[in-house]
Amino acid sequence: MGLSEITLNLPPWVDEFLQHQANSYPDVVAKMSLVIELSKQNIVRGSGGPFGAAVFDDEGTLISAGVNSVVSSQCSIFHAEIVALALAQKKLGTYDLSSDGRRRYELFASTEPCAMCFGAIPWSGVSRLVCAARDQDARNIGFDEGPKLANWAAELEARNISVTRDVLRQQAVAVLTDYKTAGGRIYNPGNVR
Amino acid sequence: MGLSEITLNLPPWVDEFLQHQANSYPDVVAKMSLVIELSKQNIVRGSGGPFGAAVFDDEGTLISAGVNSVVSSQCSIFHAEIVALALAQKKLGTYDLSSDGRRRYELFASTEPCAMCFGAIPWSGVSRLVCAARDQDARNIGFDEGPKLANWAAELEARNISVTRDVLRQQAVAVLTDYKTAGGRIYNPGNVR
Repeated sequence: MGLSEITLNLPPWVDEFLQHQANSYPDVVAKMSLVIELSKQNIVRGSGGPFGAAVFDDEGTLISAGVNSVVSSQCSIFHAEIVALALAQKKLGTYDLSSDGRRRYELFASTEPCAMCFGAIPWSGVSRLVCAARDQDARNIGFDEGPKLANWAAELEARNISVTRDVLRQQAVAVLTDYKTAGGRIYNPGNVR
Repeated sequence: MGLSEITLNLPPWVDEFLQHQANSYPDVVAKMSLVIELSKQNIVRGSGGPFGAAVFDDEGTLISAGVNSVVSSQCSIFHAEIVALALAQKKLGTYDLSSDGRRRYELFASTEPCAMCFGAIPWSGVSRLVCAARDQDARNIGFDEGPKLANWAAELEARNISVTRDVLRQQAVAVLTDYKTAGGRIYNPGNVR
C-alpha cells in the first residue's frame, strides 16, 4: 500500500496568533475567550470549521490549542478537540494526561463535543471539560453531531471528569451563526445527509 | 507554544506484512481474517494494543490498514479504526469517503468500536461497519470502551451505515485473551480506573 503516515499541521496563523496572547489564563472566562477567538479566527483565516479548543493545566497555563481542520486536512478525525488533545499529549509525552501526578488538565471547547470527541475525552486523561455553545447550537446550523447519550455529561462525571457548560455560550453561538451566514461548509458526509 | 504538528507512523512491519497478503478480498471472512491477523501481529511485534482495522472498497480491494498505536505514539486518539479511516481518507484525498460516486467503502474492525471510534464512523463516510469481537469482549479483558448508546448499531443504520457483527468473533476474542494473558498493557487513563 505504501501509505503509512498521518500528519496534521495546525494552520500557520495559530502559532503567530498565540504569540500575541497571554501565557496564563486565570479563570474560565479568560480560557473560553481564547478558545472562542480561535474558533472565530479559523473562519476569518479560511482554515476550517467554526470550532476551537484548548488544553490548560490547573494553574491556567495554556498547554495546546486546536482548531477544526477537517476540510484543510481532508480528514474527518481532526476536530478541534482531537487536535488539542493530541497536541497536549505530544507536549507532555504521554497518552494519559492524568498520569502527571502534579497537574490536572482541562479541555475547553467552543462547542460541546460531537459523538466522536465525547468518546475521545475519557481516553485522554483530562479531568475537566468546559464548553461554550451547546451541541444543539451546532445542530442548529446543520452539523450532524452524531448519536450521543442524552446524559453524556453525567457519564463523564461518572468517570471523574467534571463538566461545566454554557460558559460564554452566546459568544460562541454568534461565531457559529456567522459561519452559517457566510456560507461556510457544513462538512457532514454525503451518506448521512 | 511552538507545537503544531501531529504525526503518526504505522509500525514498519505493517507495510511489509501487507506486501505478502492478497490485494483483493472476496468476502467478509477474508477481510476479517486480515484484520484479526493485524491485531495479532500488533501484539507479536510489540507495537500496540490487540486491535486491528482496515478499509476496503466494495470490490474487495484493500484501501488502508490500521493497528492500535496508542502506547507507541503516546496518543490516545490513535485506535486502529481511527488510523485506518484517516489513512483511507488520505489515500482518496477526501474527508468524506461517501463522496466517491463510484465506490462505497467499508470499515472492518477486529473489535466493535469504543465510544470514540463509534462517533468517528458517521463523520468518515463509510457505508458499512463489520466487526468481529464484541465491545463486551474488550471490556472483559479490562478496557474501558467508554459510554456508548445501547442501540449504537441501530444509530449507525439510521445514518445509512450498515452494521454486521460477530464475524469470526471467536478468533478475535482469542487475540484479546492472549494479550491479557501475556500481560499486555490495558491503557485506560488513570482517572477512569
